[in-house]
Amino acid sequence: MTATDTVPVPSFDDADETGRKLVIICSKGSLDMAYPGLVLANAALGEGIETHIFFTFWGFEIINTKTMGDLKFVAMGNPATHMPNAVMGLPGMTALSTKMMRKQIADLDIPEIPEFLDLIHASGGHLWACRMSADMMKLTEDDLYEGVEGIISATDFMELSEGAQTLFI
Amino acid sequence: MTATDTVPVPSFDDADETGRKLVIICSKGSLDMAYPGLVLANAALGEGIETHIFFTFWGFEIINTKTMGDLKFVAMGNPATHMPNAVMGLPGMTALSTKMMRKQIADLDIPEIPEFLDLIHASGGHLWACRMSADMMKLTEDDLYEGVEGIISATDFMELSEGAQTLFI
Amino acid sequence: MTATDTVPVPSFDDADETGRKLVIICSKGSLDMAYPGLVLANAALGEGIETHIFFTFWGFEIINTKTMGDLKFVAMGNPATHMPNAVMGLPGMTALSTKMMRKQIADLDIPEIPEFLDLIHASGGHLWACRMSADMMKLTEDDLYEGVEGIISATDFMELSEGAQTLFI
Repeated sequence: MTATDTVPVPSFDDADETGRKLVIICSKGSLDMAYPGLVLANAALGEGIETHIFFTFWGFEIINTKTMGDLKFVAMGNPATHMPNAVMGLPGMTALSTKMMRKQIADLDIPEIPEFLDLIHASGGHLWACRMSADMMKLTEDDLYEGVEGIISATDFMELSEGAQTLFI
Repeated sequence: MTATDTVPVPSFDDADETGRKLVIICSKGSLDMAYPGLVLANAALGEGIETHIFFTFWGFEIINTKTMGDLKFVAMGNPATHMPNAVMGLPGMTALSTKMMRKQIADLDIPEIPEFLDLIHASGGHLWACRMSADMMKLTEDDLYEGVEGIISATDFMELSEGAQTLFI
Repeated sequence: MTATDTVPVPSFDDADETGRKLVIICSKGSLDMAYPGLVLANAALGEGIETHIFFTFWGFEIINTKTMGDLKFVAMGNPATHMPNAVMGLPGMTALSTKMMRKQIADLDIPEIPEFLDLIHASGGHLWACRMSADMMKLTEDDLYEGVEGIISATDFMELSEGAQTLFI
């Protein structure tokens, strides 16, 4: 699939090569849970699948221009890190574990979040923001990554996701 | 779609206007992760989509009459709150951050959890509880929101979800 | 459905009795979020549904032979436990809450994680590991549960999931 510019008025019914559609809801704002949605979206686009990401709740961290370049990984409360909570709660531990994870990701030549969004946008992936979350956080389109096509309601989301495989992350 | 009473013996194969079916699994018990399932279910019902919510594990907090009106938001461990863990771990911080989030939600005229369940139930949404979780927590139907149609097994869930779009929250 | 050995060269297009396919992504490494995926996979297999689990990010804890038998439950940060964070952060609390949850699970005759994977594998369930996560964690097939059929890319995952109902846990 070649990268294409998104059309000025994006349609919910893009034709694509495969007839498949994938809708991913990104609801988390941490570094470790931002990547799965972007990696899956990128892979889907490579397979010619019509791909949408709907950012909601904490997922706004991924498309808020003030935060998207600086997502954090909090090890505390995550037993998979095998670190005592008493240690992970010390000052500076979030900065340290975030730095370590960013290095692990960079070592695999996986782009940082803003560059990853650029890549998905350039590949024809559709990015949407949740109206209710925007209203809760008092954010407008001016606060969001420029590739976001619109702030849409949950009802719009339902129409968008017709016929799609769906993932809530 | 007009609000309707649920039928006395709910069927897994409701006819509906759209031929679409959505099954949402609610597995979290925090205030911030209770709302996405309810908001999406409500939007789906408004679109005439057959909608089921299956509450499992911590999601029982949402339908347990002892807890449903008092869900908490824990900011600690969530980097999207941009607060140091050392601060978020202080006594009273969960109460404070919960109070702030409830106000944000109320300001948007979004109902509290029990009223939201009433709305979904009245709109024909189906609410189910997980048998294994009920057994683990030693809860029976008497402990649950009256709109819950039954405590069903994972096998029942598989039959229920045939042909549905699925979300695990 | 009777338990069967998996075929030597697993196919992405297994015929099955129902025409249904389920793909579950397990991305969490905690005891409480490991079980939902395994319970649903097991129920799906019992219904004759072609079932795949794709382990990614923290989900590797479930198939890493060094960790799979010793998953932890961290109560801190989870308001559904109704314990103050100040208490849950004390040394030994993760060990205690893990022990309590393991007992609750054992009391229901639900197998431990390794035995549960054996059961799913023997029933014809397909287990896959994520290439990117393996590379991040510097793990190879030698580190993983022997029933894992392969370490596959996100692109492979997209092909695998064609026509499937999908859940991200």
